[in-house]
This record gives sequence, C-alpha cells and structure tokens, in this order.
Amino acid sequence: MLNSQNRFCSKIVFLLLLVLTDMLYAQKNIPLPKKNQLAWQDAEITALISYDLHVFDGKKYNQALNRITPIADYNIFNPTKLDTDQWIRAVKSMGGKIAILTVTHETGFALYQSDVNPYSMKALKFQNGKGDIVQDFVASCRKYGILPGLYIGIRWNSNYGVYDFMVNNDNSPFAKNRQQHYNKLCEQMTEELMSRYGELAMVWFDGGAHGPELGGADILPIVEKHQPNIIFYHNTQRADIRWGGSESGKVNYPCWGTYPFPYSHSTNTKEIFKNDFQLLKEGDPEGEYYMPAMSDAPLRGHNGRHEWFWEPGDEEHIEPLESLMDMYYGSVGRNSTLILGITPNADGLIPEPDVIRMKEFGAEIAKRFSSAIARISGKGSKHELKFKSYQKINHIVLMEDIANGERVRDFNIEAKTKNGWQLISKGSSIGHKFIAKFQEIEVSALRLNITKSIAEPIIKDFSVYNASGNL
Amino acid sequence: MLNSQNRFCSKIVFLLLLVLTDMLYAQKNIPLPKKNQLAWQDAEITALISYDLHVFDGKKYNQALNRITPIADYNIFNPTKLDTDQWIRAVKSMGGKIAILTVTHETGFALYQSDVNPYSMKALKFQNGKGDIVQDFVASCRKYGILPGLYIGIRWNSNYGVYDFMVNNDNSPFAKNRQQHYNKLCEQMTEELMSRYGELAMVWFDGGAHGPELGGADILPIVEKHQPNIIFYHNTQRADIRWGGSESGKVNYPCWGTYPFPYSHSTNTKEIFKNDFQLLKEGDPEGEYYMPAMSDAPLRGHNGRHEWFWEPGDEEHIEPLESLMDMYYGSVGRNSTLILGITPNADGLIPEPDVIRMKEFGAEIAKRFSSAIARISGKGSKHELKFKSYQKINHIVLMEDIANGERVRDFNIEAKTKNGWQLISKGSSIGHKFIAKFQEIEVSALRLNITKSIAEPIIKDFSVYNASGNL
Repeated sequence: MLNSQNRFCSKIVFLLLLVLTDMLYAQKNIPLPKKNQLAWQDAEITALISYDLHVFDGKKYNQALNRITPIADYNIFNPTKLDTDQWIRAVKSMGGKIAILTVTHETGFALYQSDVNPYSMKALKFQNGKGDIVQDFVASCRKYGILPGLYIGIRWNSNYGVYDFMVNNDNSPFAKNRQQHYNKLCEQMTEELMSRYGELAMVWFDGGAHGPELGGADILPIVEKHQPNIIFYHNTQRADIRWGGSESGKVNYPCWGTYPFPYSHSTNTKEIFKNDFQLLKEGDPEGEYYMPAMSDAPLRGHNGRHEWFWEPGDEEHIEPLESLMDMYYGSVGRNSTLILGITPNADGLIPEPDVIRMKEFGAEIAKRFSSAIARISGKGSKHELKFKSYQKINHIVLMEDIANGERVRDFNIEAKTKNGWQLISKGSSIGHKFIAKFQEIEVSALRLNITKSIAEPIIKDFSVYNASGNL
Repeated sequence: MLNSQNRFCSKIVFLLLLVLTDMLYAQKNIPLPKKNQLAWQDAEITALISYDLHVFDGKKYNQALNRITPIADYNIFNPTKLDTDQWIRAVKSMGGKIAILTVTHETGFALYQSDVNPYSMKALKFQNGKGDIVQDFVASCRKYGILPGLYIGIRWNSNYGVYDFMVNNDNSPFAKNRQQHYNKLCEQMTEELMSRYGELAMVWFDGGAHGPELGGADILPIVEKHQPNIIFYHNTQRADIRWGGSESGKVNYPCWGTYPFPYSHSTNTKEIFKNDFQLLKEGDPEGEYYMPAMSDAPLRGHNGRHEWFWEPGDEEHIEPLESLMDMYYGSVGRNSTLILGITPNADGLIPEPDVIRMKEFGAEIAKRFSSAIARISGKGSKHELKFKSYQKINHIVLMEDIANGERVRDFNIEAKTKNGWQLISKGSSIGHKFIAKFQEIEVSALRLNITKSIAEPIIKDFSVYNASGNL
C-alpha cells in the first residue's frame, strides 16, 4: 500500500517535472533543421568549383568588365586534360563532403548539354560538341563519395544581355519579350539540371534567383518537384542556408543557426544589410527559421587577391595553410559550413599547388581533430570529463545534437588543473560545432556548464584534443 | 603612186570615222557590268529559299511580333524529311539558275555548323546537332548545276536582342559592348560562310549590312577576300544589284541597269525613296554605276497574302501561273532578274502544290520562248528580220550585249504586214532583255530601229516567237 502510494507519488513528481520542463523550455517551438540542413552542417567542409569561359582567355578576370562584355570566342574553352576525378580527389583530400560546380556563371555559358540554352557545351569544338562537364562532375562525385551540388548563375549573362537578373532594358516590348524568354530559359535550364543528374545535395542560385514577384524566373517549384531533399539557396521565398555575410571563409561569433526570415537576404529587407551584414554573420537566436550560415572564400584569396577563377600567375595568392586553418576555426568552429572556392585551370585540372594546399588542409584538420583524448555525450546542463592522469590539451570540441534544434544559449568550460578549477572557455552558441582553441594546459578533468538553454541541452559531442604541431 | 595615195586616203577616212564615232558615242565612259553581274542577269530566274525556326511553330508568321519575340523552343526545328535535292530540283524545274538560302533570318538562328554563333544547328537535337543545311543546300546546287547564293540576315535577331542592326539599347556600356560583340559575330559568321562552301554566286545582306560608319559590322572586306567574284548585296559601300523597289516580282519600264550611287539604298539618301522608290524601280540611264534591278516576290503572295515562309493553310495563296508569267514579263522582260521566294515546309520539303506551280512556270516559259521563229544579232542601229512566208507572231525578244554596257536609249520595232509597215512596239531600255508581247499578227519582215544610243548598239538577240496556249 505504502509502496503503491510511493509509486503514485513518484509518478506525480515525474509528471510535475515534465510540466515544469515544458514551462521552462518549451515556451515556443524550437526551429528544427530539415534532413538536408543536417547533412549540410555535417559536411562541414565543401568546395565550390568555379569554371567559366574566361579561365581560358589568358587574362586577369575583371568582374565588372566581364559582366558587361561577352566573351569574344567561346571556343577558347578547350580543357584538353580535363579530369573531374582529379578535382574531386582534391576536394576529398581536404575533407570536403560536398562539391558544388558553377554550371553557369556570369558569361551565361553552360557547362552541359543543354537543349534550351544554345550557349552551352553543344556549341563547342571541344569534345566535338558532346561534352557535359556537369555529368562528368557528378559521376566523379559519386565515384569518390562526395555529394554533388550545382551553382546556377542567372543574375548575370553577358552573352544574352542580362544585368542583375534583367534583360538590358530600354522598356521596349522587345526587351519585355526577351525578359520573358530569359526567365523561361532559366526555368528550363533549372528543369534540365534538377532532373538529369540524380539526387543533388544543393543548388545555389547566386545573388538569389529573383522570382516572378520581381520580374524573374519561377525556379523554386521546379527545384522542389525534382529535388525534394535539396539544400536550396536561394530566392525571396526560401533559403535553406544563408550567406555568412562575407567572403572571408568565416562568420562572427556567435553565429546562430536560426534566422528571422525564411529567405537569406533580399534588397527589400534592409535590416539584413545593417552593420556590414551583421544579421547574416550572426543569425538570431530568436529566429523562427532554421538557416545555418555558410562561410565562403576562394582558395586564391591571399595577399591582395580574391579570385574564384583560375588566372595566370595567381599561385602566390593561394591561401597559406595557417589562413585555411583560421577559416576552419572561423567557420566550422562557429556552427557554419566552410565553402572553399577552387578552380580548375585551362588544362582542366586543379593546379598542383592548389591540390597540395588542399591536401595539407585536410591533413592538418585530421591531425588536430581525428584523435580525441576523450569524449562524452549526453543530455543535461552538466557534463564532466575525468582523466586518470593529467592530460595536456589545447582544443575542445562541442557539438549539440542539432536534429533537436539549437538549444544552448550560454555555457562555460572549466578545467581542473593542479591549481584547481579554472575557466578556460565560454560562449553562447554551440550548434553543430563549437571549437575552443587555447594555450596548452594540463588538466585532470573538464566541466561543461550550460548556464542557459531553451530546452534540455543534448550534447552530441564533448571531446578534447592535444593537437601537436605548429598551431 | 596613185595606189599608195588611195591607200593613204582610205586610212585617213578610217581614222576620221573612228574619231567621229568617239565624238558621237564615247562622250563618257559607259558603265560596264562585272562578270558576276553578267552571270546574274544571264540567270534571269532565281529562287530565294526562306527557312527559319518559326516555320515549325504551326502558327501564322507575324513579322512585327516575331522580330521582338525569341522563339520559345528552337528544338521545334525538326525537318524529318529534309531533302535539299528536292528543293533544288524544284528551282531547276522553273528554269532557275541561282538559288539563295536564308542562312539566318530574323530569329538569328543559323542553318549551319557555326563556331561563332551558338544559336545554330549545333544546338539542335535534329541530326544529333551535326546538321548543316547550308552544306546540304550547296551540295544539291552543285549536283544539279544551280549556282548557290546565301542570304545572311543580320539586321534583326530576336534571340540576341538586335533590332534594326542595333543591340537593344539603353546606352549603357553593356549595350555598347554587346553591340561590338554582335558586330564581330556577324563578321565571323560572314567569314565562315564565305570561306567554307566554295564559290558562291551571291550574298544577300538583307536590309543592307550597316557598316562601321553606322555602328555595324564590317563585312565587305571579308566577302571580298573570300569571294572576289560574288554578287554582293549590299551595304552603304557597295551593291552589285539593286532592289527593284517592291516585292511584286516586277519593276517599272524602263528599268535601266545603271544607277547614280554605288549602293542600292541607304536611309542617308532620301532621293532613292522618293515616289515610292522610283529610282530603284527604274534606275538612271545617266547613272555611273552598273547595278541591275532585281524583282523579288514570294510564290505564296496571291490573294491577300505575301509570305516568304511556309505557314499552315497557305496553299490557296500560291500565285497562279498567269501571275508568275506576269512577273516574268515584268522582270526578265524589263532587264531585271526575278527572285521567286519559295519555302520548305516543316517536313523539310517544298510543298507539292508549290513544286507543281514552279514546274508549270518553267514549262510555260520554255513553251513560249524556247523555239524562235527566227533570230539575228549584230551591231548597228538597224536590224531586219525577213521571212520567206508570212508568220504569225506574238512575242519579240531583244537583248543587248550588255558586256559592253547598256547602249540603247530609244528604239522601235516595225512589222511588215499585208497592209505595209506598221509600228508594233517601241521603248527606251533594252539592256539584258526586252520582251514585247502583243496580239498575234501576220508579218513577213520585222525591223528594229534604234533611234538613240550612247554608243554603237550591239544586239545580241533579236528573236521572234509565236507562243501558243493561253496567254
């Protein structure tokens, strides 16, 4: 009787606790990532492979000029040593999980066998007009276990005469008809690209694919029809990831995975542009939409250059390993996905110096983070790692199980040293990953204290490292 | 001694006669046709074969709308029964000597394997993107002994956004760069077309290829480099023939082979446009430039239509034989070359009703003019044909030997009937050919009296016919 009363009491207490938990945490719905967003954040490192006609012109790329100047002779496109396997091996060597190819960039030239855009590989002498680099690229990705994504630039088209989405416009009926035709062309290319190459990890409409509401193409329904699980980036209706507000390969800290709008950015929403894109760089912990930030940067961005495309004589501008590691900490270590821009040369290969740097980058990440001294995971606000003996450490990695949303709002990490417990790191956002890097210190225990959260914290990983080498 | 004096006197008289002849006739240089112009006028009957994407859209062509509306899907171009031999046999059956193909018309689509214009047959699914109708056409011409010519439309390009030679223009640097690119494209296409297909009889830049002086492409040096003997039509620098001032298949009478400008027409020369193109229709006997008129008309121009392109349901608008014969008299019979517009259908064949009419046309011309009752030729102002018995006649054909220029300025023809000599025809211009058609009369002799000429007349043919049948 007493036992059953006790059991009854236990149940009451348990239910009360559940109610209290609900009151404490579940005051509103936590934005949850979709499956594609989880995969995107799990990837951590991705590559954007930029390739276009002007790679072959032997001249320095001048974006402002190239945007308004059609390529004189598209048959300069002749990558005689084309080897997309080599591209993808380079991506894999740096630990990349997703590779994205610029199917069209600002010339308007399309790297595949389009039946709607004559300005495509069908027009080339190269491979007797039968080449399809999208197909080659996707096949290489599948071969090496890399997820393929496609970048479709429709905002600029120097050949067709499109500037900032709009057909160069004198307000004539002619211009209006060509705008309609161009919009249809973009939709039809999207249809081809979304339907021909199997499942894609992401599609990137650079600059945002202006929709019909802005006089542009209506591409979203086409993407959704053929690729229900794709990362869609982006238009004024939808963005599954957001631009991280710079092309530095880094975001600010904190960088929340949530955002107050369903779209990444739009000229109609001025607050996104305030303070040098602060909202993009940091997100909004109160945001209703799950939309993690990406951190994009070109590999050839060092020392006064910032080039997404191969150009002669730019080898000295390949980012040093240290810069790439800075990007890694500033992106992956801040709940953001790194997109490193790489570019095949006019031979059709990622240049050897770039390949070497990418491999070094992957090796360095592996060296620092592949062997945890210890790791735990679990629910709750307190997590403690204890060591049998003192350990020299210099990195801690935290991961939330973001499948259940980003819950942590404030935390700190204490280390038990020979001088007792001391604070070694603190922060607000953890999200997919938070990396603390600090001067090597000897510890016998570590404590993660989550001091504020919007629901019960679920720590997927709390791991500790002693990365040797020159940090 | 006397003999040698006589011989000396004879020489003096002869030299004096030469001087007098010079004084009478050779007060100025007579414009002489070039070899290509002679061949053009000798051809008498030619065909313009018009073929473009909109033939396949199943809709009535609306030139004003089509000019400003890109074709929605160029892969509608799919002439599954394409047979250029059949086209050329039809041209030959009507007595045509030259066939001209529209390589590009107003869509901008090019009917060959261009390496500079992606909007060409390389873009098509048809023939796996390897089709080249220019090549097929030229091969068929050579097979049947027809001289090939090419029509290159660069004035309009609905796809690239060109209107009246100019890239649709908002005066931006973008538009200026695209204009430059378009001009270069036109030059490069001209280079391809002039250099790839052997010797061509003529090239037709419709509307006049605006040259650099008007902001357009500089195509003339390219044509002259590759095709020194071609009929060039036309730009503001040069025209070897001139438009006859209408699309009726006829010119006015007289229609002189000479013209006061080296170009056919230009918006800068308003006097050419006066009186409904009177100067184009009639030429100028004082003109310093040899430039005979062409008389163009579409075969499908009857009864309220005037269509150069195949369209559904236009069979009833095929010109009746009588209209075609009227054109023949109004063009060939007036020192002009007839250009009849024919068009393959969406199957790739000249439709059977058109083929039949073309054959009837050729047969009717042959019936009327292949068997002369008598003919003479020779120099001088008086030419007489005498018959052993009375002959019923209803046509007389006169031809000058225009290799030596158009010399006759006034003439009449008298017939000796049972009632004595009577005037049956008179005129001013003869040129390549003058045809007199009249009610049948019985004659025993004919006299051609050239009453005015600028040099000694050289009559290449003075022939007489009794064409049976329904005239």
